[in-house]
Amino acid sequence: MLNDSTICAIATSPGKGAVAVIRLSGKDAVKICNKVFVSVTKGKKLTKQAANTLHYGTLKDGKTIIDDVIISIFRSPNSYTGEDVIEISCHGSTYIQQQIMQVLIKNGARPAGPGEFTLRAFLNNKLDLSQSEAVADLIASTSKAAHRVAMQQMRGGFSDEISILRNQLLELVSLIELELDFAEEDVEFADRKKLDDLIKKIQQHIQELIKSYNLGNVIKRGIPVAITGRPNVGKSTLLNVLLEEERAIVSEIPGTTRDIIEDTIVIEGVEFRFIDTAGLRKGSKDKIEAVGIKKTWEKIGQAAVVIQVVEATDTVQEIDEQVSEIKKRLKGQEHIVVMNKIDLAKGQKIKGAGEWIPVSAKDKKNIDKLLEALLKVSDLAKLDSTDTIVTNARHYEALVRSAEAIERVVSGMENSIATDLLAQDIREALHYLGEITGEITTDEILGNIFKKFCIGK
Amino acid sequence: MLNDSTICAIATSPGKGAVAVIRLSGKDAVKICNKVFVSVTKGKKLTKQAANTLHYGTLKDGKTIIDDVIISIFRSPNSYTGEDVIEISCHGSTYIQQQIMQVLIKNGARPAGPGEFTLRAFLNNKLDLSQSEAVADLIASTSKAAHRVAMQQMRGGFSDEISILRNQLLELVSLIELELDFAEEDVEFADRKKLDDLIKKIQQHIQELIKSYNLGNVIKRGIPVAITGRPNVGKSTLLNVLLEEERAIVSEIPGTTRDIIEDTIVIEGVEFRFIDTAGLRKGSKDKIEAVGIKKTWEKIGQAAVVIQVVEATDTVQEIDEQVSEIKKRLKGQEHIVVMNKIDLAKGQKIKGAGEWIPVSAKDKKNIDKLLEALLKVSDLAKLDSTDTIVTNARHYEALVRSAEAIERVVSGMENSIATDLLAQDIREALHYLGEITGEITTDEILGNIFKKFCIGK
Repeated sequence: MLNDSTICAIATSPGKGAVAVIRLSGKDAVKICNKVFVSVTKGKKLTKQAANTLHYGTLKDGKTIIDDVIISIFRSPNSYTGEDVIEISCHGSTYIQQQIMQVLIKNGARPAGPGEFTLRAFLNNKLDLSQSEAVADLIASTSKAAHRVAMQQMRGGFSDEISILRNQLLELVSLIELELDFAEEDVEFADRKKLDDLIKKIQQHIQELIKSYNLGNVIKRGIPVAITGRPNVGKSTLLNVLLEEERAIVSEIPGTTRDIIEDTIVIEGVEFRFIDTAGLRKGSKDKIEAVGIKKTWEKIGQAAVVIQVVEATDTVQEIDEQVSEIKKRLKGQEHIVVMNKIDLAKGQKIKGAGEWIPVSAKDKKNIDKLLEALLKVSDLAKLDSTDTIVTNARHYEALVRSAEAIERVVSGMENSIATDLLAQDIREALHYLGEITGEITTDEILGNIFKKFCIGK
Repeated sequence: MLNDSTICAIATSPGKGAVAVIRLSGKDAVKICNKVFVSVTKGKKLTKQAANTLHYGTLKDGKTIIDDVIISIFRSPNSYTGEDVIEISCHGSTYIQQQIMQVLIKNGARPAGPGEFTLRAFLNNKLDLSQSEAVADLIASTSKAAHRVAMQQMRGGFSDEISILRNQLLELVSLIELELDFAEEDVEFADRKKLDDLIKKIQQHIQELIKSYNLGNVIKRGIPVAITGRPNVGKSTLLNVLLEEERAIVSEIPGTTRDIIEDTIVIEGVEFRFIDTAGLRKGSKDKIEAVGIKKTWEKIGQAAVVIQVVEATDTVQEIDEQVSEIKKRLKGQEHIVVMNKIDLAKGQKIKGAGEWIPVSAKDKKNIDKLLEALLKVSDLAKLDSTDTIVTNARHYEALVRSAEAIERVVSGMENSIATDLLAQDIREALHYLGEITGEITTDEILGNIFKKFCIGK
């Protein structure tokens, strides 16, 4: 898949900024840039400059000045892609970005496809496949947890674990082949216990990785939260207040920003994703209740946390009824009861609220208590561990297949199946692990992975 | 206004990208970055690295890894601001961008205000004031014309002209003071002609710059175009087709983008801005016709080009009537008549269309002819000249005031006013020119200029 072409792309976020960066990679990167660059130092040629240096000058299309720019030179193999790489830092006008792309294309570069820089990094062995995938996850990360997991994966933490597993499987093969050697002599295999211990260890390790995918999914996609409650209890007001609260926190530093994803909030680095339950925003309508309720319950089934809103103006008995109504339908979800509209009820009932969190969505009162409760039930202590967490569906699938192959090895050994058949299952387990890091791959797999990247990465 | 603080800001476009750049400027820029950076080369300190070099490593907040980054080092005075500057190129996750800002702030930098980097460049004499203003114009430029004018101004083209004018005015002062010296001796001033010639030359030059502001305004804001015509002739369909046409052209290169400004199109580098005339989008309503027509005509009065839409299904006489109805109300605007709905009229009438451009907005037919006509009437030959074009209202005002002072000099000389009074008017003219380039300025002027910049520039 590697070819001779030099690729170029705008690497910074689309749109106007103070600065934009356009990236070139390939054997002609320096040559192409040199053709359109005039240094402030008379006669300076980029082609003769050292790696890892910066150069100020003017980018021209014939006689037309496009911009005053800074050029960064990276040389193969010490670059992101492993090829010669040029980065052009220009004024962030969208017009200038376009013009620079055009003049580079005119002079022999071609526009890069999605993820093509990272694909080249993979093909040049700068990153393995799971590290490459982590680059995209890292860029997409909007929470501390997602960032931490992607960063660990990008820096090879996951690859190291796969490598350990692969080495253990190779050891397993050699132990089994040892048995094979002695088989004809019909002596009992001396180190059967060692073999058993090793395969159990591998099995357990892979199972832990498979199990971590639940958490990984939550980290990557956010913890699904449903808000429920009777009509007009203030569900949508509460949701909006939660969303606003976080927007306010995020914009503390001028110029910083977060991709606002519909109905997600990040509290202390943990992302919560609110499920759009029917009637959540509008208050459910009686007419369509029959269909609505069914759908709502389906949606609530997908949540990890259910926030139930009740009204402080109701009697304690009414509230208890509503709470138990929801409680009996929950299937292991965390359940937080919020008593809204404390601005309307005066004092006494709030004191008796017990395990309900008294808030006023309207007056934005006690919202911090609700956020605390959300964090508490989310049990993300695991996040601070250094255990590897699988976040990628492709990796999850490969691990499951690998585990199946190993399961066959275990039962095969119990049933004294021929060792060469066992060895074949082990090789299959190795194959699936190799797919994760890309030792074993196809153009199709690569195509599917990199087409999801953004252009410029 | 300069102070000891080290400022930091995200310099690239807000949001997610493959790469983002965070910029630090100030005496502690390198030191602060060094505190949070761990090079891949063990023990390497940024503080000991040469200017204009690139360094790969990890950015950390305590023990937490924020990102793998590339650091660019620029050293005073050879940097954008004239101070020590660090640029951190990181993965373009919005979360990472925030975290880097936070760790820099924690270690002694402070978030930069709008335009604060460029303000420092101005205060450190890297750019004069009109050049600084051009930086913002350059970043905002979305058309070839706006880009060219901003680029010329940023590179000092306009400043050079102001400098020539200032030198001529200083020469004028010395010629007048020469007359002053001889005045007591009551001899006629020997070189009166030279003095007259010089002042005429100055006057003419300033007048040309003032006149160019009309064009400059059009370049910066786009050529104002109004689409008019009777109800249901297809005005809004035509506008949408024009807007679509350009969107399609712009997105030719994958990954390039243009800030889409409501109702503007760029044809061959020239920006056209469609004025939202009443009823333009909806077809005018008879009930509010009285008010509507008045407003429409006010809006049309602001246009430089009026596109009148008529229907191919009307008779030639009807069309003639409509055209002359508009024509008699025009005040110097260019007038393009578009005969729409040729898909409904068959052949014969189109041949007789004469100066009308036959199109079908519905079938997107002949739209290119209309674009050609728009370009032709816009008379932008001037754009390719190297004459300076004033685009900035502040500069325009200063030039007008300067011209007024010079006018007083001219009439003063005709009326033999005391030369020391003349000299005072010349100094006033000099003062206003000095305001343009910032030789004369106040904190208030600077505040007004830079608050309009984006953060990070």
